[in-house]
Amino acid sequence: MDDGSKGHLAYAEGGVTAPEGFLAASVAVGLKRSGRKDISLLYSERPCSVAGVFTTNQIAAAPVLMTKEHVADGTLQAVVANSGNANACSGAKGLFDARTMARAAAEALGLRPDDVAVASTGVIGRPLPMDLVLEGIAEAAEILDSNAGTDAAEGIMTTDTFPKETGVTVAVGGRRYTVGGMAKGSGMIRPDMATMLAFLTTDAPLDAAACDSALRTAVDATFNRVTVDGETSTNDCVLLLANGAAGGEGIGLGDEAYDVLAGAVRHVCAELARMIVRDGEGATKLVEVTVRGAVSDDEALTGCWAIADSPLVKTALFGGDPNWGRVASAIGASKCTVDPGRFEIAFDGVTVARDGEAVAFDEAAAAAALSGPEVGLVVDLHSGVGAATVWTCDFSYDYVRINAEYDRLEKPIAEERA
Amino acid sequence: MDDGSKGHLAYAEGGVTAPEGFLAASVAVGLKRSGRKDISLLYSERPCSVAGVFTTNQIAAAPVLMTKEHVADGTLQAVVANSGNANACSGAKGLFDARTMARAAAEALGLRPDDVAVASTGVIGRPLPMDLVLEGIAEAAEILDSNAGTDAAEGIMTTDTFPKETGVTVAVGGRRYTVGGMAKGSGMIRPDMATMLAFLTTDAPLDAAACDSALRTAVDATFNRVTVDGETSTNDCVLLLANGAAGGEGIGLGDEAYDVLAGAVRHVCAELARMIVRDGEGATKLVEVTVRGAVSDDEALTGCWAIADSPLVKTALFGGDPNWGRVASAIGASKCTVDPGRFEIAFDGVTVARDGEAVAFDEAAAAAALSGPEVGLVVDLHSGVGAATVWTCDFSYDYVRINAEYDRLEKPIAEERA
Repeated sequence: MDDGSKGHLAYAEGGVTAPEGFLAASVAVGLKRSGRKDISLLYSERPCSVAGVFTTNQIAAAPVLMTKEHVADGTLQAVVANSGNANACSGAKGLFDARTMARAAAEALGLRPDDVAVASTGVIGRPLPMDLVLEGIAEAAEILDSNAGTDAAEGIMTTDTFPKETGVTVAVGGRRYTVGGMAKGSGMIRPDMATMLAFLTTDAPLDAAACDSALRTAVDATFNRVTVDGETSTNDCVLLLANGAAGGEGIGLGDEAYDVLAGAVRHVCAELARMIVRDGEGATKLVEVTVRGAVSDDEALTGCWAIADSPLVKTALFGGDPNWGRVASAIGASKCTVDPGRFEIAFDGVTVARDGEAVAFDEAAAAAALSGPEVGLVVDLHSGVGAATVWTCDFSYDYVRINAEYDRLEKPIAEERA
Repeated sequence: MDDGSKGHLAYAEGGVTAPEGFLAASVAVGLKRSGRKDISLLYSERPCSVAGVFTTNQIAAAPVLMTKEHVADGTLQAVVANSGNANACSGAKGLFDARTMARAAAEALGLRPDDVAVASTGVIGRPLPMDLVLEGIAEAAEILDSNAGTDAAEGIMTTDTFPKETGVTVAVGGRRYTVGGMAKGSGMIRPDMATMLAFLTTDAPLDAAACDSALRTAVDATFNRVTVDGETSTNDCVLLLANGAAGGEGIGLGDEAYDVLAGAVRHVCAELARMIVRDGEGATKLVEVTVRGAVSDDEALTGCWAIADSPLVKTALFGGDPNWGRVASAIGASKCTVDPGRFEIAFDGVTVARDGEAVAFDEAAAAAALSGPEVGLVVDLHSGVGAATVWTCDFSYDYVRINAEYDRLEKPIAEERA
């Protein structure tokens, strides 16, 4: 996830409120059993160019369907997001509720409903307690703050263990622009031309086409290259809002500044994507899986996914076991062409198999590589020049615990059984 | 897995030695840390017609490669199988070792090596300790017994918690024929035109073409419809041996008796396949997943696999949670066409979603359905007449334990570290 333009980038504090002219807020209305913040509001003082990428799941949630429409004209000024309830598989009421949320935020902020996006995440198939949600939106609109990026990131968490936000500044054309972002993980993660919830903001004057191009390119290389459990959610949605508050000429696709901003967007997406995997449900390790020497990049990517989504590989990684046989079996069973006499496998630079067979290796070095919080796994097929990388995590007892008990962990207070 | 000819079938004791003229034996030579039986020998007193179905994994293990050759001429008389070591990713030595095993068995039994199949299961990528293996083959050949079917089934177990064997008798053309079988599970199970190890025997005089047809048809409807973890192993192999010891005219594809025998073979495969899933690593529940009302049978099957391999669905089943949102999300993200406003989901007859939305349901009935050892999960897409069924299991802490600690559980005694 090297952005290729690191020289230009400097870290910026504040997440989605790092860029000028963006305010945020988050409140708790009781959608989550934990009682933690569950309604986040993001607002730009100026109208924004906007682009969005959405789930490819056929059962897209109501807020996804509505937000797609609101983003279609390329302008937006606010996002309201809730956690604890996905408003998915919720039929006509769900769509009505999403529209009601947009309208409530628009009224509170003096906007047109069409300029408000809505995103929801949490349990599928339960009705939203709209009285609480509307209360929360009104309350959040009262406390908008230019330093509340972290609050907003907390308000979209479900099984996440930490809020995910980052930001960078870039200098171009004599001006300094900031790109900020927040995201939530951490289960049902195997985005496909989309991702879980992620919101990026910038004060650069990107036009809508530039937003769209920068976002799609970045998502494809970042959020679309991570997996926690191979599941593509019904609610995936990533938005980029550009308000131009930092001034300067409008930036379009052909402009020099575009490439710099696109690099910054990609950097922020990459950071957030890695955070999602690092915080994957139950994860103890972030694992970078690279397949190279494949017949094509596409086949390499197919091989990466087969390895990155393999329960046997992921449990071995949890156990700290350099079980390369499972890696070989996973890629061998995939549609990535493998010459059984040629492949080579290495964990963090320690080669454990070569020419399709075991090699003697430094067991202490392998054990050390596998005990750390980040593991690099490289499969070289020695059959071509195709290569790809994806990020995954290990598979632990806690993934089972979190997901076997999700009902208990995440049930809204209002609906909890005695 | 209804065979459609239950009236003809009667249960037969004895697994692979239930048919006349088959002997078996199993010994322990220390390939498994547990010290349990690890070399099984299956022998027919008469030459057999044979058919085999093998893994589609590109990294097929050495014994698979060799056994394919030995089965190609349609005759076989013995099978030697070991557990504890898969002899996979073992290069030229692996192939040499497989051939040596066949030759050793052939010598002990007075056969041509070409009439002996070899199958291995266990850890990938470790050399077979051939001195132990050859000792075991010689020893097993000394104690062949017509009542040792269960012993042989024990000798091929790895993480299996019980030996898997069954048998049936059928009456046709004035004679009574028996079909027996044994199999092993219980991880790396998502056979694709193949299965884990399974061996079927019959004393019916099926010719090789009849064996092949009966076996392929049965495997496609049974072993190829089960999953434990979505992983297609390097060592999958299923063989059907027919020795004709029960007498009668030869049975070919066009004969009336063929259909009866094919039904019996399918019944035995179905029983063994269900046993494999029931004994899936860490499994507490056998789950029958049916998708109907799909645009086509193929799409229904695609939808079944998406649900049956979903870690979120499987952990919810472990937790006894009727979390139909995960079922909807899994099939919605698949290539099975789903109308989001039409689908219906039921657990053991308790409908939990209809027209794509939650419906009120009897929570006690749903909880009861999900707490039993068998769960039926039906998704009706109401979009066509396509249907398919697969069998899966839940995903528990023990799956993680078994596979994070496999190295410790399964390391051969000979190779154990201090």
